Amino acid sequence: MTIERASLRWNGWGPVNQEIMLPDNAPQWAWMAEAIGLKSLPDTKAKPLAEITMAPCRLSETILERLRKIAGAEQVKTDNYERAFHARGKSYHDLLYLRAGLLDMAPDVVVYPRNADEVLDIVKLASVEDITLIPFGGGSSVVGGTNAMAKSLGGGVITLDTTLMTRVIQIDKIAMTATLEAGIYGPALEAALQKHGVTLAHYPQSFQFSTLGGWIAARGAGQQSNRYGKAEKWLISAKLATPKGMWTTESTPASAAGPNLNQLVAGSEGTLGVICEATVKIHEIPARKDYRGYLFKDFKSGVEAARRINHAEIPVAMVRLSDAKETYFFQAFSSTSSQTSLKAKLQRAYLKYRGFGETPCLMLVGHEGDDDTVAWAQSRTEAICTSLGAMKLGTSAGQRWYHGRFGSPYSRDPMMDHGIGIDTLETSTRWSNIENLREKVVAAIEGAISANVPHVDGRGIVMAHVSHSYPDGASLYFTFVFPRQLDREVAQWQAIKRAASDALLENKGTISHHHGVGVDHTPWLKEEKGQIGFDLLKKIKTEMDPKGIMNPGKLLG
Amino acid sequence: MTIERASLRWNGWGPVNQEIMLPDNAPQWAWMAEAIGLKSLPDTKAKPLAEITMAPCRLSETILERLRKIAGAEQVKTDNYERAFHARGKSYHDLLYLRAGLLDMAPDVVVYPRNADEVLDIVKLASVEDITLIPFGGGSSVVGGTNAMAKSLGGGVITLDTTLMTRVIQIDKIAMTATLEAGIYGPALEAALQKHGVTLAHYPQSFQFSTLGGWIAARGAGQQSNRYGKAEKWLISAKLATPKGMWTTESTPASAAGPNLNQLVAGSEGTLGVICEATVKIHEIPARKDYRGYLFKDFKSGVEAARRINHAEIPVAMVRLSDAKETYFFQAFSSTSSQTSLKAKLQRAYLKYRGFGETPCLMLVGHEGDDDTVAWAQSRTEAICTSLGAMKLGTSAGQRWYHGRFGSPYSRDPMMDHGIGIDTLETSTRWSNIENLREKVVAAIEGAISANVPHVDGRGIVMAHVSHSYPDGASLYFTFVFPRQLDREVAQWQAIKRAASDALLENKGTISHHHGVGVDHTPWLKEEKGQIGFDLLKKIKTEMDPKGIMNPGKLLG
Repeated sequence: MTIERASLRWNGWGPVNQEIMLPDNAPQWAWMAEAIGLKSLPDTKAKPLAEITMAPCRLSETILERLRKIAGAEQVKTDNYERAFHARGKSYHDLLYLRAGLLDMAPDVVVYPRNADEVLDIVKLASVEDITLIPFGGGSSVVGGTNAMAKSLGGGVITLDTTLMTRVIQIDKIAMTATLEAGIYGPALEAALQKHGVTLAHYPQSFQFSTLGGWIAARGAGQQSNRYGKAEKWLISAKLATPKGMWTTESTPASAAGPNLNQLVAGSEGTLGVICEATVKIHEIPARKDYRGYLFKDFKSGVEAARRINHAEIPVAMVRLSDAKETYFFQAFSSTSSQTSLKAKLQRAYLKYRGFGETPCLMLVGHEGDDDTVAWAQSRTEAICTSLGAMKLGTSAGQRWYHGRFGSPYSRDPMMDHGIGIDTLETSTRWSNIENLREKVVAAIEGAISANVPHVDGRGIVMAHVSHSYPDGASLYFTFVFPRQLDREVAQWQAIKRAASDALLENKGTISHHHGVGVDHTPWLKEEKGQIGFDLLKKIKTEMDPKGIMNPGKLLG
Repeated sequence: MTIERASLRWNGWGPVNQEIMLPDNAPQWAWMAEAIGLKSLPDTKAKPLAEITMAPCRLSETILERLRKIAGAEQVKTDNYERAFHARGKSYHDLLYLRAGLLDMAPDVVVYPRNADEVLDIVKLASVEDITLIPFGGGSSVVGGTNAMAKSLGGGVITLDTTLMTRVIQIDKIAMTATLEAGIYGPALEAALQKHGVTLAHYPQSFQFSTLGGWIAARGAGQQSNRYGKAEKWLISAKLATPKGMWTTESTPASAAGPNLNQLVAGSEGTLGVICEATVKIHEIPARKDYRGYLFKDFKSGVEAARRINHAEIPVAMVRLSDAKETYFFQAFSSTSSQTSLKAKLQRAYLKYRGFGETPCLMLVGHEGDDDTVAWAQSRTEAICTSLGAMKLGTSAGQRWYHGRFGSPYSRDPMMDHGIGIDTLETSTRWSNIENLREKVVAAIEGAISANVPHVDGRGIVMAHVSHSYPDGASLYFTFVFPRQLDREVAQWQAIKRAASDALLENKGTISHHHGVGVDHTPWLKEEKGQIGFDLLKKIKTEMDPKGIMNPGKLLG
């Protein structure tokens, strides 16, 4: 069930031979150029791997031979494609380097162990020999979480790819738990579970190309986290290969036997050990899924609806509220093609008449479960939304989102081919602070883009949505599109990233709601955890990995 | 709002001048004696404090003077009542010592700081001077969690009583969070919140005499945990005074910025620092509470109902299923008094006719929330119960339980006055293992009691119930009553405790679901956490408290 590395883009998203989402002659390009203040779009295609010379392997033949002995000769790879594929993750920042053909950071060898025992042997070897070890699942990190950084300059790097470890070890339909090897990809995991009538239902946008172990390591969230929980909520127990040995965490339903250590595994980002297996909460496949749209007059009333839905404890799977710009952008983006533009104009006229002015905000609400629960919950959700003045849009908007829910990442490669930068970041904060934080972060990103554009007319588009909500607050997810400064691309991105991250911390947001810390967020972690908390995390790391070989430079910097 | 120490029993439960629950001439005594195989009950009254000589204070006048300077002279107590009150917690094991007048373990001084800054000053003083510091809230621990053990034999002990710290710092009705000082007792906390229309709704059996900080430190559970969550679930953020300084943990609704450190605070049992303040999730006061009973043919079908209620994700506040013996015992216990015995006989006859034989099991289901939700949830719960053959008992059984829900602890003192021992312990396990674990632990306790009785006819009564449930499993709570071996009381208790705890760990239960580890469960913690997890917890302790002054001997041994 594993996806062959050679079938996947090493420097972009998805299969090598996928249909191009936005071909060069797509009508959207002209509209996009105008939106970000460019007269025309430059050609900024990526450098092909064949034109890139890679540094020679820094590890000795003896080490490679010992890896072959542990995992089998065929599972130890030193070819350029494997090394390039495992060099970095899938962040905009990573893609800048990859597309420019800068592969200084590539691992020296990639090894594919077949089970937890082999993983432990590899961890032990790396530990004894003091070699950097990078755990790697789907490699879809957007914060540099799997980048092949050596602990010391010039040192060798082993990347441990878990994706041959895909077995379902146990499905317990009485306790509704499943134990699986952690290298299994999203689609394979769901296929294996759904064959038995059950589901984990963890559907991040990266679902097709990310793994169970990665979701746990990064404290990931699926799009239906309101119902199924973030990784730290559905994780019951984990088995990690650490430099100290194999560590299996507690697994009782609830306990007062001291702090629960699974909560140190969730979010550990490969710095404590390699997650080899995990026991997770599963659910019956929902008999019914109901996704539908509501249009709010403004963001504020939409946030209020999301809050009330949470506080009424209505069982929702998803509440996704776009701000006005995101609502507009996605409508405009799709309405430039085909015959939808007339329909859009008519809709716009109607909305004005209804008092929605220029700032309508789209909310999509998903309910999943048995027929009774969905019907009951849906009627309650609808009552809250309409009481706050929302217009019912019915199920079509919901279904359209649902069918395209893994689509966004595919648009980035063609955009980067046309001189357009696009990145995302996310946070969470208390309900009363949502609008303030959204405004501050949007302003920070817009400001940083304006100060870092290729020429004076350049400008960014900054959009936001709420997509995960809790009793005490909600997440905010920002998408920003900007004209690339082709002569200082990394500095441009860093300026935007810094401005946004500072604004997050200054305004009581977390540095990440579900992407993790990786490399990119390390400068802000100490402020978020406080000095004492940060020191404690460092001590935990030192206890499990005294030599610091496990994914160095990530999480704690 | 604080409860005066002098108004509370130092060696038992509740106010000094409470009405005696079971007077010497109560009809229940004869029935109880017969049930545990005793011809008559001995008189085993506790030793009064006036007859006990306490060891002199081991701390110097200089230290006491510095404490007075920090917290004010009136907040530093060295009188016998204060020292005795803070010597131990409220476990059966503790009461054996307290009632015998053995107060070797009493603290040398009790200090009542008035805010977090004073707490930090006391922690710093204790740290610099290397003096044992015991955080103490209500002192209701039943696992020795607040016992005044010195880190080194003969060393002095300061007990830090938090109960002057009762301020409500903030109530945020938009985020539905409250920040309070941690020394506030249950009733004062609820009064302060309910004045604003909100509730934490954490109602452990110890509610009247336990504090917010204690609930968090011990990972406690309220009786309505299905709806409101255990402490680790409703804790959002904590402020701890530690030997390293003041530590305020993260507080965003959800985050992927590394492991969440609040989960190390919940269950830390005073070993990392003193919990001074906490931000917690609150709820609107439920408009409706519906508690009602169902009678199942056997324990197995009741467990199946509890599981289905959980998996159907019905919003229940409480599902409490007694095993046959507990169902019978409580009925018998109440029916010996007054006119209920005829009614009980008639009921028994009717139950036999309905096929309930000799093993009916009572389930109490509580729903709390708005009218709509309660009505909807109740109808779904009822459908599940009746589909499994349960008989509806209506709301009277539920209401009776609700009104007496804090009553059980009051029965222990009179029982101990009459030569009867009573203790409880609790665990959790997967659904498929509930019956097996219940049977094994009941057998282990019964066996240990039979091997440790004052004479051959002696026997124990061992009862169990499920009272907290989760998607993957549920808790089990055991109550056991036995004739005390008056010449070897501690050894008798230890034999029972050891047998039960070994049975828990051998059969995949946790050593504690909500009582905590304290002193009594330390021998089993390493097995539960594994060597690597246990070592990690030790390292965390050492990082926060390098000299080991904070509540030594608890949690990690």
